[in-house]
Amino acid sequence: MDFPVLYLRKGAERRLRAGHLWVYSNEVDTQRSPLPGFEPGSQVQVRASNDKPMGIAFVNPHALICGRLISRDADHGMTPKRLTDRMEAALSLRERLFHKPFYRWVFGDSDGLSGLVVDRFDDVVVVQISTAGMEQMKDAIVRAVQRLAHARIIVLKNDGKMRKVEGLDTYVEFAHGPEADTVLVEENGARFEVPLAGGQKTGWFYDHRMNRQRLQAYAPGKKVLDVFSYVGGWGIQAACAGASQVTCVDASSSAVDAVHHNAKLNGLENVDTIEGDAFDALKALADEKEKFDIVVLDPPALIPRRRDQKAGEQAYARLNQLGLRLLERDGLLVSASCSMHLSQEKLIDIIRGSGRKIDRFVQLLEQGHQAPDHPIVPGIPETDYIKSCFVRSLTGFL
Amino acid sequence: MDFPVLYLRKGAERRLRAGHLWVYSNEVDTQRSPLPGFEPGSQVQVRASNDKPMGIAFVNPHALICGRLISRDADHGMTPKRLTDRMEAALSLRERLFHKPFYRWVFGDSDGLSGLVVDRFDDVVVVQISTAGMEQMKDAIVRAVQRLAHARIIVLKNDGKMRKVEGLDTYVEFAHGPEADTVLVEENGARFEVPLAGGQKTGWFYDHRMNRQRLQAYAPGKKVLDVFSYVGGWGIQAACAGASQVTCVDASSSAVDAVHHNAKLNGLENVDTIEGDAFDALKALADEKEKFDIVVLDPPALIPRRRDQKAGEQAYARLNQLGLRLLERDGLLVSASCSMHLSQEKLIDIIRGSGRKIDRFVQLLEQGHQAPDHPIVPGIPETDYIKSCFVRSLTGFL
Repeated sequence: MDFPVLYLRKGAERRLRAGHLWVYSNEVDTQRSPLPGFEPGSQVQVRASNDKPMGIAFVNPHALICGRLISRDADHGMTPKRLTDRMEAALSLRERLFHKPFYRWVFGDSDGLSGLVVDRFDDVVVVQISTAGMEQMKDAIVRAVQRLAHARIIVLKNDGKMRKVEGLDTYVEFAHGPEADTVLVEENGARFEVPLAGGQKTGWFYDHRMNRQRLQAYAPGKKVLDVFSYVGGWGIQAACAGASQVTCVDASSSAVDAVHHNAKLNGLENVDTIEGDAFDALKALADEKEKFDIVVLDPPALIPRRRDQKAGEQAYARLNQLGLRLLERDGLLVSASCSMHLSQEKLIDIIRGSGRKIDRFVQLLEQGHQAPDHPIVPGIPETDYIKSCFVRSLTGFL
Repeated sequence: MDFPVLYLRKGAERRLRAGHLWVYSNEVDTQRSPLPGFEPGSQVQVRASNDKPMGIAFVNPHALICGRLISRDADHGMTPKRLTDRMEAALSLRERLFHKPFYRWVFGDSDGLSGLVVDRFDDVVVVQISTAGMEQMKDAIVRAVQRLAHARIIVLKNDGKMRKVEGLDTYVEFAHGPEADTVLVEENGARFEVPLAGGQKTGWFYDHRMNRQRLQAYAPGKKVLDVFSYVGGWGIQAACAGASQVTCVDASSSAVDAVHHNAKLNGLENVDTIEGDAFDALKALADEKEKFDIVVLDPPALIPRRRDQKAGEQAYARLNQLGLRLLERDGLLVSASCSMHLSQEKLIDIIRGSGRKIDRFVQLLEQGHQAPDHPIVPGIPETDYIKSCFVRSLTGFL
């Protein structure tokens, strides 16, 4: 097959060689291959400045990330067959790792499917398409989901903000099966009802599943505070594992309602909630001299962009100090982050500094990362974002 | 109690403030406090150059690390009572985390007990003392082990090479109970007989226990190669979890014998061995066109000292490339390191480079660290050494 050619500027091929899959618009040799000449979502052959073919990419002249490599074989691009094969390869990994069909089935670039995210909730499958290239494959995606997973319901949750950048309209559509408002999720033995069409992103974040499982090892008999709880992912799983008492803090009243609903769903009577700003709630609890055996901090990305680095790191430091202060003399801090811009190393250093500031001896017991249904591609730093630290804090110890 | 005072040079207090516990001999103000004036193993009050007390340390004028902070309270040093309390705090963490009494009970500085390592194998306890300061507490340590764990056998395995630096003699002594050559270890459902008095360090490394547990999730039905196998820690646990076939490679004939013995101990008939240099063995397997579903690489520290950095990193790269080459088209590489000088980030970059070099699409599925019975103190980088990467390698995928 013949593909139009997109020429890179000199040196711009290096990142691709090193393992990345993206081409930025300022890396294109627009003299040789003017961007407006490409159809959004079409496939192009990418060539280095010395004419060496680098592979086939989806192109979008309107986006900052104007090229997304989908093949390093410069003669073969994406086809319905290849898409199905990759979805099958992705599925085989998840089926091998998880006994029940609840997982992120496709994680974009990490599964060789840039612009596509698929979450599976048993026989309900939620598809998110974020690029013009992947939009071209929409019908093939729905067919592959039907063929590979025999889904009862397939939702196209195409309302991400990336879509505007790509010149796509935003919509939520039930491509297959009856409409439904909510879906039931199982994770580490706990059940959750989460919004399907509305809600944050796809309604549930599987990315911390392994870290929440580790929390369960520490939870029995313990009093737990779950800060930024959303629908209770950490707190309710701790309660299911035998925590004596759980308090969930979230600013959203619908999240707080969901915590109560999910507690009931799991037959739990020891989960309460605080609706309000996390920082304010932590300060109020400290003023009341409340103490917990375990404090979980799982904030939204406090460093959304590079330019927020310093302020964001300070916010993490304040938060971790507040968390440590609320612990018993021998307590556990679970400090998580989903900021791509906060490295594991930096998070550990923030915990170190927080411990020293208030004279706690801190032992880093475990370091968690995103679950294996969110693989990291080592050459694509953007695929690596989740981290968690399990820290024992001892007062008056050394 | 009055302690002799050890004065630091200007600025030398900074690392201690940040969380570290060590004083190097070149950080001492030898004008104000000449090192030869201190008794090896005695306790001193450490003061900053501005006279501010920093805490109490064990001192050894003959060692490069001449001071080891054991208390940030400058009026109270180490006592048998305090030692017992810290051993109890260490034990309570392990008892909470592990259902069976097999673990590293004390991990030196990380448990506030610089110079002391204690491993527990049910009712057999192996104690390693590496500093003159901790040697002073020998009787208290043995009493604490008896009181807290009701040990049947207590071995003082005081033959580490650090002891010479500290001016201590080296010996192995059964401080309590009958002499024994070997001890039975349980880890993740597998059993191992390991040397007690001889053998590498304390005979068993618990530090990879969580990573070996994760290997078990991937092992069922798979053909596994365990490189640098020692007595079969990874390979035998994979076989116990249902691997179809396991091959262990080690250069030591006694380790290879132990693999066969441990395979029998677990009723396994699908474990074979290759005795020989790992690099040679991997090359030979590649020449024979052998393929495996899973390759585990757990080499000894290939970067023993800072000055070995470059050569060591090259050795890791060669090793990881050899490992990747031996994988099936959809295979798993488990790449471990126990080099303090190799960061997790660098190991991942080596895997990235190895994958690119031989055109594999690699997905980093899981990142493991040392188990929680080897806590890391964030201010002491020397306490952080174990890492592992679980990498799916796909051939002809993208």
